[in-house]
Amino acid sequence: MTASSGNSKPVVLLSPAPRGIAEIFRPSTWTALSTEFDVVQSDTGNEFDAVLPSAFAVVGQFDLDAQRLARAATLRAVLNVEGNFLPNVDYATCFDRGIHVLGCGPVFAAPVAEYALALALDLCRGISREDRAFRAGTESYERSTSDSILLRDATVGLIGFGSLGRALRRLLLPFHCAVLVHDPWLPDSALREYQVQPAGLRETVESSTVLFVLATVTADSEHLIGADELDALPHGARVVLVSRAAVVDFDALLDRVQAGRLVAAIDVWPDEPVAVDHRARSMRGLVLSAHRAGGIPSAFLEIGERVLDDLRLVERGLPPVRMQRASRELVHRYRNRPVG
Amino acid sequence: MTASSGNSKPVVLLSPAPRGIAEIFRPSTWTALSTEFDVVQSDTGNEFDAVLPSAFAVVGQFDLDAQRLARAATLRAVLNVEGNFLPNVDYATCFDRGIHVLGCGPVFAAPVAEYALALALDLCRGISREDRAFRAGTESYERSTSDSILLRDATVGLIGFGSLGRALRRLLLPFHCAVLVHDPWLPDSALREYQVQPAGLRETVESSTVLFVLATVTADSEHLIGADELDALPHGARVVLVSRAAVVDFDALLDRVQAGRLVAAIDVWPDEPVAVDHRARSMRGLVLSAHRAGGIPSAFLEIGERVLDDLRLVERGLPPVRMQRASRELVHRYRNRPVG
Amino acid sequence: MTASSGNSKPVVLLSPAPRGIAEIFRPSTWTALSTEFDVVQSDTGNEFDAVLPSAFAVVGQFDLDAQRLARAATLRAVLNVEGNFLPNVDYATCFDRGIHVLGCGPVFAAPVAEYALALALDLCRGISREDRAFRAGTESYERSTSDSILLRDATVGLIGFGSLGRALRRLLLPFHCAVLVHDPWLPDSALREYQVQPAGLRETVESSTVLFVLATVTADSEHLIGADELDALPHGARVVLVSRAAVVDFDALLDRVQAGRLVAAIDVWPDEPVAVDHRARSMRGLVLSAHRAGGIPSAFLEIGERVLDDLRLVERGLPPVRMQRASRELVHRYRNRPVG
Amino acid sequence: MTASSGNSKPVVLLSPAPRGIAEIFRPSTWTALSTEFDVVQSDTGNEFDAVLPSAFAVVGQFDLDAQRLARAATLRAVLNVEGNFLPNVDYATCFDRGIHVLGCGPVFAAPVAEYALALALDLCRGISREDRAFRAGTESYERSTSDSILLRDATVGLIGFGSLGRALRRLLLPFHCAVLVHDPWLPDSALREYQVQPAGLRETVESSTVLFVLATVTADSEHLIGADELDALPHGARVVLVSRAAVVDFDALLDRVQAGRLVAAIDVWPDEPVAVDHRARSMRGLVLSAHRAGGIPSAFLEIGERVLDDLRLVERGLPPVRMQRASRELVHRYRNRPVG
Repeated sequence: MTASSGNSKPVVLLSPAPRGIAEIFRPSTWTALSTEFDVVQSDTGNEFDAVLPSAFAVVGQFDLDAQRLARAATLRAVLNVEGNFLPNVDYATCFDRGIHVLGCGPVFAAPVAEYALALALDLCRGISREDRAFRAGTESYERSTSDSILLRDATVGLIGFGSLGRALRRLLLPFHCAVLVHDPWLPDSALREYQVQPAGLRETVESSTVLFVLATVTADSEHLIGADELDALPHGARVVLVSRAAVVDFDALLDRVQAGRLVAAIDVWPDEPVAVDHRARSMRGLVLSAHRAGGIPSAFLEIGERVLDDLRLVERGLPPVRMQRASRELVHRYRNRPVG
Repeated sequence: MTASSGNSKPVVLLSPAPRGIAEIFRPSTWTALSTEFDVVQSDTGNEFDAVLPSAFAVVGQFDLDAQRLARAATLRAVLNVEGNFLPNVDYATCFDRGIHVLGCGPVFAAPVAEYALALALDLCRGISREDRAFRAGTESYERSTSDSILLRDATVGLIGFGSLGRALRRLLLPFHCAVLVHDPWLPDSALREYQVQPAGLRETVESSTVLFVLATVTADSEHLIGADELDALPHGARVVLVSRAAVVDFDALLDRVQAGRLVAAIDVWPDEPVAVDHRARSMRGLVLSAHRAGGIPSAFLEIGERVLDDLRLVERGLPPVRMQRASRELVHRYRNRPVG
Repeated sequence: MTASSGNSKPVVLLSPAPRGIAEIFRPSTWTALSTEFDVVQSDTGNEFDAVLPSAFAVVGQFDLDAQRLARAATLRAVLNVEGNFLPNVDYATCFDRGIHVLGCGPVFAAPVAEYALALALDLCRGISREDRAFRAGTESYERSTSDSILLRDATVGLIGFGSLGRALRRLLLPFHCAVLVHDPWLPDSALREYQVQPAGLRETVESSTVLFVLATVTADSEHLIGADELDALPHGARVVLVSRAAVVDFDALLDRVQAGRLVAAIDVWPDEPVAVDHRARSMRGLVLSAHRAGGIPSAFLEIGERVLDDLRLVERGLPPVRMQRASRELVHRYRNRPVG
Repeated sequence: MTASSGNSKPVVLLSPAPRGIAEIFRPSTWTALSTEFDVVQSDTGNEFDAVLPSAFAVVGQFDLDAQRLARAATLRAVLNVEGNFLPNVDYATCFDRGIHVLGCGPVFAAPVAEYALALALDLCRGISREDRAFRAGTESYERSTSDSILLRDATVGLIGFGSLGRALRRLLLPFHCAVLVHDPWLPDSALREYQVQPAGLRETVESSTVLFVLATVTADSEHLIGADELDALPHGARVVLVSRAAVVDFDALLDRVQAGRLVAAIDVWPDEPVAVDHRARSMRGLVLSAHRAGGIPSAFLEIGERVLDDLRLVERGLPPVRMQRASRELVHRYRNRPVG
């Protein structure tokens, strides 16, 4: 660690685990951060507690209970670089004191949106399925595409409309889809600003040829898409699951894929790694993906950029704009588990 | 066949093979066509020649040499529903006489563009490759995506910028890519209208992280992308081939995929069906596809709609607008082979 | 003039009147044209007739009757740089012989579209009216805007959907208007590709808060918007007239503006110059404009660029793509008068 | 007023002055508000103080000092419906207690953006100037447009990039302008997400053919655009001033318009109403507007909708999303004066 002493640069306590320094900071970003701030890498509780009273910001997933926060007299911002707001921080105290609680979720919006679109197009056209057939020598030419559909002009449903939903909506614009959105946290008028049609859950599933499950897990959203909703989807509908497995009744989904009622692309699983003998591994109607939608190198490197941008703003007395600002109302609702 | 007699409806000679009637006409389209025109389905030469002198239009890939055209005194339009302009028509005579020569190419722009985007996203993220790994029980979670890239902000090259290139360019808009286009048939200013950067072939391949090969085959474009061009691509570049195999030095491409220098998605092959023991079938860096980009049911049904729309316009004395109008300059250049 | 002799450059006969050389050619364009082609500026019939037999192309509004065309054995293209296809050319012969007949209409699409949008926004917000009030010392502040409306989400009607309509449609995209289009030359499906709603004339006027009159004059479109159509517009509707005055029953329009039933912006007039004592000059509900929508310097200079681009393409044996290609069906229908 | 008693609906204290109830609430919005909340219209301090201890939210520009807030034990939100955050609220206490401080600024983004675009197009084409000429009988036809320019492909500068700048940026998208943005509150990366080019003030003014002044007034932005910046603009540049007059050295701007160096459209003035004999009233190079950009009926009615939407969200324990959330860092910086 670097000792914090004898200079006036703001002290930043840093411990990005499970991310690595080089994973989230480009060399140039790291140089800028180190030059403009007094960066203290703290991996043990003792170091951390020694520096905390003079810290301007902490970057990482540190435990910050009320007692610790009471000692962090100059703390201005807590920057989470893992992706989930976990219950190891006394968020209420942070909000009362005007300490910014910031998350890196926005860096994943673009990669997950691109991935979700890729999965949807794969399901519309059978790309990975036919690649397998080709490798097995059983491909057929041109006239075999009877179950292929265009995404253009299709009716598409989005379950959840946070930063991911908005990023995906932008990618869908040139396809001229009718886009129905179900998001109980947003009023209809807020959705309409994005040229989508607000809809109830039932209406959304009944109309959607392609359904994107984008909602985060809360007490309210667990098994939001149950057997009834799956049965309400049009026959042959495409389901893209990229947020959290728990939002869907997972077994019910697999049953319907197995029966040929639906096809699906799944990036998030109830238990990861998936069991070696899991029935999903051999289902024809699935595109299988091992939690790959968000964690790509450029996204991780964007975390560092956003951290630096927002540290600079807060230091200048301006509001941070690049990371996601946690809100009093929502920060306790998320039930996502940390990255393993 | 239906006899053409005793009414004043314009006579349309129809033989859509290799397409089927029900493949290209929705019931409602067929009803409208049959009601508004005197449709004569002609499958043999004799019938055809008997009706030809009174024909208003022919729909299909009939042989129309100078002699036949000389007898087609009232002919106003020749509508090809197969997709390629073949050398079985005396096009010069058609143009001299103001007979419209129309092709159905535009119906394939949207499905091929969506497919090309799907393939590019698959290559950017390894979707079909990792689906295979998952099925083999060898998937890895999240941290394995080290070769994944975003399409957002990537530099993309398009070889060829006809209706397909334009359709794809629209789909790329929300990705904010830098798009370089090489198309020797179009002046730079025409390209710039589409917010792309005109470029030479060399500049295009040197800059492109993702290269889309969209050019049709002519004497000039055969092996346009040769070994030199492939070697000029950035290491790890993604190549998407969806127009015709002959535009690329195919073996040179496979060599580079095999060597791990490039990855590629291939929908068109020098010989189809592909040999059972073709080396491509087992290459890790390929997405294999059996000529599936264009021929989807909704595209075929759009042929019928466009045929009906343009027949109506021509009958009203207006220019056709829904099918592709062949030009004197280009119709002899295409070397695409007919659908097998 | 420059004599055409002793070299192999294609001969281009040029007489751009009423345009001037420097008005339509930038110096660099002119240099390229003069270098690549043997440009013969011909202002008298004699010169013209002497060079015509060896001409590759003519650029200007020359009279080209059958007799002259018979002598123009090598002619490949006729490029009109005035804007209207006038009845001084034997177009049928041109088409039979595959001589391209090209017009410069596309250069005016962008300036007229921007102007039409500007006029619509002026009418929505009263900009020129309130500028006049301010200059008269009678402006009122902020609370006076009771008749102001947003263009956002408004229902907009377009009468005519050629290159101008398409250019305007693009500018309207971010306003998320419902756009109804009436164009009897285009099938509904062709319109829907532009994300507009095809509609009959009556439906269009009944629904449109803002009506753009963009149609060219033909026998069919004269007084297309008559008293009945004007009365069918919603009270307070905004009418933007930028194509040709004859498309509208002009007196009926002024009557309704005078009565406060409609407001309108008018750039084209039945007789130009407008009479000094014309009642329109003092109407409060008008934005008055003296045929200014298209003729801006950058548009004129774009003519020269498009001429050069297409001459090069035709010379290379490729189809022209930058100017408007006249069609057999439409070229005789236009009744626009030449620029005075 | 309605007494608050004997029911469990959340109490909303309402006094929208200077807005009127019917000005900001549609009948249906008002009915919903009155049904779901216990709305107490309070026009005197006594009433207000009596109800405050039980209030869930206050809607209006009430004075809320520390003493009053101390008595507002159940207060959850303060909703300003005037447009400026004034120094009559103890904002720090609100933030400490998690009381949402919300403003109605977003409703003005669309109308001001449309107005700013209209003014820019007027300046590009001389619309109001030529309307005046036409009324004076001095119009000239078509060839007089020598100072007209297209907005398409122009280089445009935006000073300030809040909700207004973003709304305007969207409207500019189809014009394919190069857009430079100077906003010292936002990091470059945040700007680039909107497909604009971050730039210093000097670079912005030196490059901009059209300059939009959109910044709010703070200690830092007063006279941000001074004589030096105005002199750095290209000759003939168009300046659109729609935020606050104080951001510009107003006299220096008028000097340059008077001298023919620049043209400008001005909606906000140092003193309103403007003096009867103000020199601006007769300047040819100006478009004059009397603070009309934002205050249109539909915008005022949108205030009521947003108030209702956010009251509902806060009551459900969710974060408000429709109004602008004041931030600790910025709320004290604004120096805009209230609506007169």
